[in-house]
Amino acid sequence: MANILEVNDAIADQVGRRLAGNGVFALNLMGSPGCGKTALLEHTIAALKDELNIAVIEGDLYTDKDSRRIEVQGVPVVQINTVGGCHLDANMINLALDRLDLTQLDMLIVENVGNLVCPAEFNIGEQARVTVLSITEGEDKPLKYPLIFKKADVIMINKIDLLPYTDFDLAAAIQDIQALNASAKLITASCRTGTGLEHWYDWLRTQVKKTGEVVKGCLK
Amino acid sequence: MANILEVNDAIADQVGRRLAGNGVFALNLMGSPGCGKTALLEHTIAALKDELNIAVIEGDLYTDKDSRRIEVQGVPVVQINTVGGCHLDANMINLALDRLDLTQLDMLIVENVGNLVCPAEFNIGEQARVTVLSITEGEDKPLKYPLIFKKADVIMINKIDLLPYTDFDLAAAIQDIQALNASAKLITASCRTGTGLEHWYDWLRTQVKKTGEVVKGCLK
Repeated sequence: MANILEVNDAIADQVGRRLAGNGVFALNLMGSPGCGKTALLEHTIAALKDELNIAVIEGDLYTDKDSRRIEVQGVPVVQINTVGGCHLDANMINLALDRLDLTQLDMLIVENVGNLVCPAEFNIGEQARVTVLSITEGEDKPLKYPLIFKKADVIMINKIDLLPYTDFDLAAAIQDIQALNASAKLITASCRTGTGLEHWYDWLRTQVKKTGEVVKGCLK
Repeated sequence: MANILEVNDAIADQVGRRLAGNGVFALNLMGSPGCGKTALLEHTIAALKDELNIAVIEGDLYTDKDSRRIEVQGVPVVQINTVGGCHLDANMINLALDRLDLTQLDMLIVENVGNLVCPAEFNIGEQARVTVLSITEGEDKPLKYPLIFKKADVIMINKIDLLPYTDFDLAAAIQDIQALNASAKLITASCRTGTGLEHWYDWLRTQVKKTGEVVKGCLK
């Protein structure tokens, strides 16, 4: 396992350099099945596609269901089918990049396989990680699946429109998340109603701008 | 991978014989993080502990949060911490059985790690598999994660109390599940309100009775 992760890290470095060399900000989007990753992508593309050039890599075991949801928005999508595999790795991303024109992109969002365990172990050359937790999963999940929350740059608590109909303890969830990872940006949102997503868009705009400035700095 | 699964299958056979030799009906309870596995266990134990001798094996990455929820019900619980591992395997169960008095048991329920991918690959010597899908995960999940639905003996669609507040298409979900696995028993339920669980209890009673009869038949 240590060896697999070392090989993966070496390829992830290569992927990171390819992306950075083209000034592309790349995001690894993770969370349980059905936590709202694809819905978040749909909102994000609709909100930002006029100001940013966005592409998506979709990870899924067998289907292209999520890719088809993204394609209708008119942005480039590359489908990776893991054929039963439980996570994306850096090599899969490296191959997928060959199918995108990186020189034309500002932001690449990679939707990982729906899984709160395995994707956290594999770097894929991303600049930032986002972990989505839906409130219907229960407030105990951050402590039960700590790695994916510890490694996140943004933690989104999603489906808050359902708060009145569940026993989810939002204060406890936030407390546990902050104990695990005090530096992550915490966003509470509903991808169904759109509540809270402005904070997410602002964070993305800032990251893309920073990435662009770094590349300009290098070219000077 | 093939080799790992072969070794696992051999140990699973051994576990299966240990359980069957003692007339214990063993269940592998699987589903995403937060789909309601532990809540289902809590209801099941409360409903059946006066008529059946039940024990539980709890799989979790690091914590004993779920075990503590079960212990208060006064049934034996063995905690397995996978230390980041994404599924239970037969060897873990074989070791956990040493900590239970199988001669005193009618039913063993193993709550697997919350994960819709990896647990499906590993037999653990169980007589039956239950896959829980909560409606908040979305109706596309059976086709996106087919193996865990194909291998199930019971498929429970949980959290139906939230149907009015979501866009979940119950008819489409049932259609997809039946296309994948026509022989599984399908139960729609709410582990929050208790709706639909009587069908589940009846199914369990029947399985435990059948297992007991097989053992009596062998001893004749």
